[in-house]
Amino acid sequence: MIDLLKIKDPSFIKDLSIKELKELAELIRNFLIENISKTGGHLSSNLGIVEITLAMYYVFDPEKDKFLFDVGHQSYVHKILTGRAKDFTTLRKLDGLSGYINKNESKYDIWESGHSSTSISAMSGIILASDADSRVISVIGDSSIMNGVAIEGLNFLGQLKGSKHPIIILNDNKMGISKSVGALSKAFSKLRGSHLNRFLKTVTNKLFPAFLTTAFHKIKRGIKGFIQQDNIFEDMGFDYYGPYDGNDLKYCIRAMKKIQKSKSPVVLHLITKKGKGYIPSENDTTGDYHGVSPFDIKTGLPIEKPKDGELSYSQVVANFLVEKHKNESFFVVTPAMKAGAKLDEFAKLYPKDFYDVGIAEEHAAVMSAGIALMNKKVVLLMYSTFAQRAFDELLNDIARQNLNVIIGIDRAGIVGEDGETHQGIYDISMFMEMPNIKVLMPRNSIDTVGLFNYAFTDSGPIVIRYPRGKDLITEPIDYNYKIDISWEYLKKGEKIYIVSFGPDLNRLLEIFKNNCDVGVVYAKSIKPIDESFLNDLFMQELPIMVVEQTVCSGTLYHQILDFKEKNSFKNRIYSHAFNCNTIIKHGKISDVYEKYGFSNSKLLEAVNEVIYEA
Amino acid sequence: MIDLLKIKDPSFIKDLSIKELKELAELIRNFLIENISKTGGHLSSNLGIVEITLAMYYVFDPEKDKFLFDVGHQSYVHKILTGRAKDFTTLRKLDGLSGYINKNESKYDIWESGHSSTSISAMSGIILASDADSRVISVIGDSSIMNGVAIEGLNFLGQLKGSKHPIIILNDNKMGISKSVGALSKAFSKLRGSHLNRFLKTVTNKLFPAFLTTAFHKIKRGIKGFIQQDNIFEDMGFDYYGPYDGNDLKYCIRAMKKIQKSKSPVVLHLITKKGKGYIPSENDTTGDYHGVSPFDIKTGLPIEKPKDGELSYSQVVANFLVEKHKNESFFVVTPAMKAGAKLDEFAKLYPKDFYDVGIAEEHAAVMSAGIALMNKKVVLLMYSTFAQRAFDELLNDIARQNLNVIIGIDRAGIVGEDGETHQGIYDISMFMEMPNIKVLMPRNSIDTVGLFNYAFTDSGPIVIRYPRGKDLITEPIDYNYKIDISWEYLKKGEKIYIVSFGPDLNRLLEIFKNNCDVGVVYAKSIKPIDESFLNDLFMQELPIMVVEQTVCSGTLYHQILDFKEKNSFKNRIYSHAFNCNTIIKHGKISDVYEKYGFSNSKLLEAVNEVIYEA
Repeated sequence: MIDLLKIKDPSFIKDLSIKELKELAELIRNFLIENISKTGGHLSSNLGIVEITLAMYYVFDPEKDKFLFDVGHQSYVHKILTGRAKDFTTLRKLDGLSGYINKNESKYDIWESGHSSTSISAMSGIILASDADSRVISVIGDSSIMNGVAIEGLNFLGQLKGSKHPIIILNDNKMGISKSVGALSKAFSKLRGSHLNRFLKTVTNKLFPAFLTTAFHKIKRGIKGFIQQDNIFEDMGFDYYGPYDGNDLKYCIRAMKKIQKSKSPVVLHLITKKGKGYIPSENDTTGDYHGVSPFDIKTGLPIEKPKDGELSYSQVVANFLVEKHKNESFFVVTPAMKAGAKLDEFAKLYPKDFYDVGIAEEHAAVMSAGIALMNKKVVLLMYSTFAQRAFDELLNDIARQNLNVIIGIDRAGIVGEDGETHQGIYDISMFMEMPNIKVLMPRNSIDTVGLFNYAFTDSGPIVIRYPRGKDLITEPIDYNYKIDISWEYLKKGEKIYIVSFGPDLNRLLEIFKNNCDVGVVYAKSIKPIDESFLNDLFMQELPIMVVEQTVCSGTLYHQILDFKEKNSFKNRIYSHAFNCNTIIKHGKISDVYEKYGFSNSKLLEAVNEVIYEA
Repeated sequence: MIDLLKIKDPSFIKDLSIKELKELAELIRNFLIENISKTGGHLSSNLGIVEITLAMYYVFDPEKDKFLFDVGHQSYVHKILTGRAKDFTTLRKLDGLSGYINKNESKYDIWESGHSSTSISAMSGIILASDADSRVISVIGDSSIMNGVAIEGLNFLGQLKGSKHPIIILNDNKMGISKSVGALSKAFSKLRGSHLNRFLKTVTNKLFPAFLTTAFHKIKRGIKGFIQQDNIFEDMGFDYYGPYDGNDLKYCIRAMKKIQKSKSPVVLHLITKKGKGYIPSENDTTGDYHGVSPFDIKTGLPIEKPKDGELSYSQVVANFLVEKHKNESFFVVTPAMKAGAKLDEFAKLYPKDFYDVGIAEEHAAVMSAGIALMNKKVVLLMYSTFAQRAFDELLNDIARQNLNVIIGIDRAGIVGEDGETHQGIYDISMFMEMPNIKVLMPRNSIDTVGLFNYAFTDSGPIVIRYPRGKDLITEPIDYNYKIDISWEYLKKGEKIYIVSFGPDLNRLLEIFKNNCDVGVVYAKSIKPIDESFLNDLFMQELPIMVVEQTVCSGTLYHQILDFKEKNSFKNRIYSHAFNCNTIIKHGKISDVYEKYGFSNSKLLEAVNEVIYEA
């Protein structure tokens, strides 16, 4: 029996028999379920990709060939095979194993893909710049193939002449993070169907006689199916193989051995069962087991019960939208965030006004602009980190055209375990330079509702940011509650004022509740700044410290500096934010706060330092 | 005879006979050539699209249906038909007719598309939000269909159930701004071929008996072509018609009448001759007639001869790359900017190291990252405005991974006639917040070479910005010239220091050459700032004015404010930049400078004001 914890490198795999490989697959699945149930992490995709990964290591040469995983969270099996099983207890913890590909972790980690769909473009560059006759293999799954950059990559790679290198393994589990959407998805379904026909007459005769015979009963089409049809990949210059059962190790190995010899760009289409090997994740159709917190293996339920009265900000926003829609019609658009943004109920109640467009941030932004252009209200919900994908469209199509789009930016600030590619710390500077746009951030769930209601009565583009995480709801939320965006003193101070936004304010209030030196200001509106409030604040002639979970460029701090300069105030201004050149690593949010200066003790320290200095 | 100048609205078109429409097409072509020869503008695309536009107005109802032009520079014929011929003398001039679609100009201008490929997503939103049973028709040309967001849009729109509205007219002139690239382009070529066969047997029998017979001689393929094949559009859920001759008015009208009745999403593929009706533009294969300055109709040559010794910054960079590659191998990657960035010679000399990837900014950025990952040098050349499309990839894939990519940002600052969607005024803030990255801007062609040579010896990602426009070369350029990035006093001052970057510095030196009050500092490196230089500068206890052609968020001014604050200096700091909420309109660069405060006289005024105040 192989001891996964003792694997040093993947060389042993080639010596295994098919039977032993199957046992290894079983072992890995159990290891994944066991470990992820304790640490949390990406469960379903990794259960689905076991055989594909094993076959890659069995057929190709990991010392020479290059394996890319797109998105990188599908790489757990790869991590186990390259000697990292022993580190799985530290998965996604601070200074522990990353949940994604990470070049610092292993020489076998080639391409860091936290955001989806980049692997085909990356492999294009890798192939162009590699002298060695090594294969570059990208496993692209979870609907990443449908994003714009992936298609741009296919468009390039498919026409690369004389290249023997590129192999794209389409890990098709029929769903992205939640269900796949769009025409391409349908086209894939069609492939799943129509190409079963092809087995009969064309490809499979040469390839898989065994599979052929068993597949015979699957014929769904008539005589037309016998004629070889082009598909989208062939249209783009790829040799297309599939679809085959990606959880059948034997077929995976056979298929890979076949394409290994191919002389042109290849797409190998493998159909896998997301969550395979664990009943609750196999049965999951909503994406609950895509990324999990620690859970009880027997029941499949999270170990940490939701605390009474705790509600995630995503849920608060989702609830608000459900309530709001009872009285007022509007659209909700989101790029693949239906599950993450808790929009299932809204989607069910108002299917005609809800559009999850898949991993297509640019499309989501422009479509929202199109809706607004027709004078219909639209709420566009994106994660901070993925909004980066739509920078140009948010700027040019929404902000420049001054359209009434409410942009809900979820996961603003530190996101924790997903780590450095997912931190929501770049959006403020991004939105700050765009014309016409307002940028708001509430400090709790009540104000989240308050600001959304404000946005519904305002005009022009409005960003409302809210963090990953939960708020304690002490009384029933009034979904009609509305606030304005003028700044507020939450607490007066005698020696210093802290200006901040978002739930950090609550921690600051807690930290300094018995300290009359420290005042706290609630900057609901990060853009525009509240000039008349600021005037009053500056007049108190105290130092001001701006606390913001963002990289320190183009932020509130800079606007306050500018205000001070233009109005010739003398107050000292301090910034407490992240340095632009610091990359914030993964880990539990509280650990990340401690490391990067945002824990309660670090905040206290920073403020005391200023008071001492002043 | 119709007088184009007297057209008030497009209602007259429906009453014309085919013969009259053809005469009108002729009239419009002559008008376009005549007018654009005087004003400059987008010539070729508009000559190609005459019949398509006429047919749209003839068949559809412009009072009810919605016409989208993607990219918007193909809209000149549409402008003429909607009563704007009389304004063509002001084309692309300040306060004159926009070269793109502009909602303020006409109620017939629906969607403002300055950046390509957004129309399909926009029409998705428009259709979702429109109550009326109106058609939405997007004419998408110049290879815009191949960009990621367009494909994301197709993916969405193709599966929109029960929608009778969407019509996509693919204006296929076989080239983008210069030649189309990529596998999709090849797939289209294939369509052009194979579907001519389809005319014979399938579609055309029902549709176009007349065309059928005349098209007979065009059959290029054998028996295989008789079998109806799926194509990429059909894969994505569209009814596909074509390809037909988009410069044959009769066929355009017939085809549009046919698709008008369709009950599902439609793609009508029309092949047009870019530049049709004017020999020099018809023969253009490099894109010289895509956007033209005023020219002599007889010779086709620009009226304004290039001044002796003047060289565009793009050309200087292109020349440098050609020279540099003689001694050192590296890649050049650009998204559809081969012609614009003057890279024809490089491409010809080093075809294996040159990749124009088409309108695919995201792919270009990630592929460059892939190349750099293999330890090969790569120069990625993009326009400032189009770099916005790759924000996430520049941040996540290049900057975060700290890869050695030299990013040449062309058209930085005011770009002039292309106007508000194309101003290069957002990139500084964009790059400023990214980790590891340096942002440089030379003040002349010699220093452009100097900084590129610096970048070749440095490591990590480096942005070098340079403007649209030319520099006067007084002596032969030494392509081995190298400078460092420390800041410089270009001129000492007694009452104020101006800190700036780029060629504005030369105008500032000129304006203040006889004025000993005003000092001028050359901030070659916008990020990082030169702290030891700044220390010296602040010690002189003079006010500092930061002059930068950028929207004022996350810029050099803010870094200097931050430096001042952290070091407790007292000097007054002034910003001379564009307000974030100001949208800079189109016009001659000098006119735009005057309007928005960057002409010599406005700069003088601003500086004098500060001196007076101090």
